[in-house]
Amino acid sequence: MNDLKKKILDQADSDLAGIESALKDNLTTYLEIVSKAAGHILFSGGKRFRPLLMILSARICGYDGTYDKTFSVIFEYLHAATLLHDDIVDEATLRRGQPVANSIYGSATAVLVGDFLLARSLSIAANTGRIEVIKAIGDVTEDMAQGEIHQLIRKGSLDLTEKEYMEVIRRKTASLMQGACLTGALIADAQEKEKDALSDFGLNLGFAFQMADDLLDYTSDTAVLGKTIGADLREGKMTIPLIYALKNAKPDDRVKMETVISDTSFSDSDFNTLKRLLDTYGGIRYTTKLAAEHVQKAKDALSVFAPSQTRDLLSMLADYTISRDL
Amino acid sequence: MNDLKKKILDQADSDLAGIESALKDNLTTYLEIVSKAAGHILFSGGKRFRPLLMILSARICGYDGTYDKTFSVIFEYLHAATLLHDDIVDEATLRRGQPVANSIYGSATAVLVGDFLLARSLSIAANTGRIEVIKAIGDVTEDMAQGEIHQLIRKGSLDLTEKEYMEVIRRKTASLMQGACLTGALIADAQEKEKDALSDFGLNLGFAFQMADDLLDYTSDTAVLGKTIGADLREGKMTIPLIYALKNAKPDDRVKMETVISDTSFSDSDFNTLKRLLDTYGGIRYTTKLAAEHVQKAKDALSVFAPSQTRDLLSMLADYTISRDL
Repeated sequence: MNDLKKKILDQADSDLAGIESALKDNLTTYLEIVSKAAGHILFSGGKRFRPLLMILSARICGYDGTYDKTFSVIFEYLHAATLLHDDIVDEATLRRGQPVANSIYGSATAVLVGDFLLARSLSIAANTGRIEVIKAIGDVTEDMAQGEIHQLIRKGSLDLTEKEYMEVIRRKTASLMQGACLTGALIADAQEKEKDALSDFGLNLGFAFQMADDLLDYTSDTAVLGKTIGADLREGKMTIPLIYALKNAKPDDRVKMETVISDTSFSDSDFNTLKRLLDTYGGIRYTTKLAAEHVQKAKDALSVFAPSQTRDLLSMLADYTISRDL
Repeated sequence: MNDLKKKILDQADSDLAGIESALKDNLTTYLEIVSKAAGHILFSGGKRFRPLLMILSARICGYDGTYDKTFSVIFEYLHAATLLHDDIVDEATLRRGQPVANSIYGSATAVLVGDFLLARSLSIAANTGRIEVIKAIGDVTEDMAQGEIHQLIRKGSLDLTEKEYMEVIRRKTASLMQGACLTGALIADAQEKEKDALSDFGLNLGFAFQMADDLLDYTSDTAVLGKTIGADLREGKMTIPLIYALKNAKPDDRVKMETVISDTSFSDSDFNTLKRLLDTYGGIRYTTKLAAEHVQKAKDALSVFAPSQTRDLLSMLADYTISRDL
C-alpha cells in the first residue's frame, strides 16, 4: 500500500466504517438472492470512493446532521448497479480478482439485481427530501446509461477522437463523482459558489480517475489489477493512450497498431508490441500529464474553502486517483 | 375490436393523443441508437394503459394543471424499461408480434437503454417537485425488480402457492398501476381518502390485469397474442390457472401435468393435454372468477367519488382488463 493511501485510510477510518454499516443497513430485501447477489458486488473490496466524496463534500460545507452516511450509499449502490450491468455488456469474467456476478448468478439475476440497486438509490434519494438531489441523481443516471451506450456503439472505432472520448468518460464516470460531491453540498445547504466548486472538483477528479483507469489497462498486470490486463483493448474500447498514440504514429506503425486493435484475439506478443508503440508515440506520457492536469484543476476548485483537515483529505483523494495501483 | 375497447378509445381519444406526444417529447437523447431502441419498444402498439390511469386519477381528484401528460410518461417509460429487461431475462423472441429489442439491437444495448428509460422516469418524477411522488416511484421500482427476481428464482417450482403467486404479481405488475393511480391523486393534492381509494383501485385492477394476462397464455393463440402461446409455461412460469388445477387434480392427472410442466420442450399435443386438464380441474374458471372479483373491488373503491364521466371511464378500464383479447 502506498503512503498516500495509508494516510487517507487513517484519516477517513471512521467515515469508511460508517459507510460500511450504512451499505448493509439499507439493503433490507425480502429475498435472500437479492442480498447475496447485491452483496457479491457491494462487499468485494470496493474503495467507497464515491460515498466518501459525498460525506467530505457535505462536511466541508458545514453539514452537521446525522444522515450523511445513509445518503452516501446512494452513490455506491448506483455504482454497483452500473458495474453489474457493465459486466454483462462487456462480457467480463473477472472484477476485483473475483468472478463477475453474472457468471455466478446468471445474467438474468444480474440485470434484475442491478435494477433493484438503482431503485434503492432512488428511494434513499427520496428520503433526502430534496428535489435538487433527486434531479442531480436523475441526471447522473441518464449520463451513465448514455455514456455506456456511446462507448458500446463506438467499440473498435479507430476514428474516435479525444473530444468524443472525453464526452464518453464524463458521462460514464465523472458525472457520478460530480453528482456525489454536489449532493454533499446540497444536503449541507451550501452557498452557490461552494456548490459550483464541489461540482467542479468532482468532475475533474472523475476525469482523472477514468484516465488513470485507462492507463492501468496498459501498465498494470492481471494479478494486481484483479481483472484481465488488456481487457479494454480486447473489448475494442478506444481509450486516450491509444487515441493519442494512433494520432501521432508514423503510417507504418499506425498500421501495426490498427492490426492489433482490430484483432480481438491478439497474442501477448502483439499486446507487448502495441504497448511499446503507445510508449514510443507518447500515449502513456500524454495520458499521465492530462490526468495530472485534471487533478490540479480539481484541487484548485477547493480554494474557495478555508484550509481544514477535510479540505486536505479531499485534496489527497484527488492525488490518489492518479497514484493508485488498482 | 370489442365494444368496450371502442368506447374507451372514443372517450380517451384526446388523452391518448396527448400521451403519444409527451412520450416523444420527453425522449430527447443525444444518441440516435437510444431513440431507436427505446422507440422500438415504446412505439410498437402499447395500450398506454398506465399513463391513462394516472391522467384519469388526477382528473377525478380535480387536477386542472397542464403537466398531467408529461408526468404520465413516467409510467410508460418505467413499463418499457422493465419490458426491455424482462425480454432479456425471459429469453423471449416476440413481443406484440415484433421481434424483441434485444434480438435486433443486442442484449447489451437493451440493458443500457432500459437503464436510460429508468433514469428518464426518475428525472421526470423529479420535475413534479413532489417528494411523495418520487417515494412512490422508488417503491414501485423496487417492487418490480424484486417481483421479477422472485418469479425468476421460482421458475418451474411445482410447490408455488396462490399466496406466493399473488405476492409476485403484486410486485411485478400491480404495484406500477397502483403507483400510477396514486401519483395522479398526489399531483392533484387529493384528500387522504381519495388517495387511498385510487391506490386501492390501481392495486386491484393490476391484480386482475395480470391474472387475465396469465389466462391468455392458455386461452389465446399466437397470432392474436403477438407472442408465442404457451410461452409462460415453457419458461416455467407457474401462474394461477396452473397452480389451482394442480392443487385440485387427481394424483394421476397431477403427474401428467407435472410431466408437461417439467419438460421445457413439450409438444403441441402435450400442451393441449395440459390445457384440457386446466379446464377439467377448474383452473380457467377459478382464475376468471378471481380476476372478476378484483375488478369488482377496484370499481367499488371508486365509490368515494361522485359519479362523473371520468369515474365511468376508470370503471370501464377496470372492466377492460378482463375483457381484452390481448
